[in-house]
Amino acid sequence: MTKKDRETTTQLWDCVTFDDQGLAPAIVQEAGSGAILMLAYVNQESLKLTLETGEMYYWSRSRQELWHKGGTSGHVQKVKNMSIDCDGDGLLFEVEQKGGACHTGYHSCFYRSMKPGDSELSFTGSKEFDPGQVYKS
Amino acid sequence: MTKKDRETTTQLWDCVTFDDQGLAPAIVQEAGSGAILMLAYVNQESLKLTLETGEMYYWSRSRQELWHKGGTSGHVQKVKNMSIDCDGDGLLFEVEQKGGACHTGYHSCFYRSMKPGDSELSFTGSKEFDPGQVYKS
Repeated sequence: MTKKDRETTTQLWDCVTFDDQGLAPAIVQEAGSGAILMLAYVNQESLKLTLETGEMYYWSRSRQELWHKGGTSGHVQKVKNMSIDCDGDGLLFEVEQKGGACHTGYHSCFYRSMKPGDSELSFTGSKEFDPGQVYKS
Repeated sequence: MTKKDRETTTQLWDCVTFDDQGLAPAIVQEAGSGAILMLAYVNQESLKLTLETGEMYYWSRSRQELWHKGGTSGHVQKVKNMSIDCDGDGLLFEVEQKGGACHTGYHSCFYRSMKPGDSELSFTGSKEFDPGQVYKS
């Protein structure tokens, strides 16, 4: 498929491009607030499951396994909309997030920020839950 | 550095983690509207330049070169805020976008969308400029 064809097709599976590990990055944005919750990766199987079930499935690179977000914590993500970028190798999901998105207990994984000129990061996120209570061993 | 230390440090360069190609994905969000404009990649050099100049610099994977966004088109991105995720391998930039972000002429690279249950993508983005006029050969 040419670059131009990839940019203009409406067929998802003609358009989506996985990297040499079979993955594509997925931006996860909270519907309504527009807050960015996390950045994770999908493979073909997890993307199919996401679209079939309406809940986010990823490929966990650290655990090397299919990952149903919220399967352990109950913090599932209900998909409201999915978008794909011009060259098909970036995905954007708008979701309704139950509980916090980050395993650290923050609402968003992006809980540290800085501005150009700042010398270090500041904690700008809000804590939503106690990981010790949610992820019991 | 331990996982826990990486999650709690406020020192950017202790926290940020580049992949085996020296890159980290950068989510680019429009300040104000919250719209996701693009997903691109930074390396150490482009991240330093971004923070020093307050304008977005990337590493272009297709051209294998440092890329000052807007250097050709004038569609520069002024950085208002940068956030980093829990494990340091995802970055989020809030920017003021001049002109359209996408080389196709759309305001955002994510101009095609679908919902779970849809059979194909729809064009949901807005065209901002004519690429033939902006990128003259």
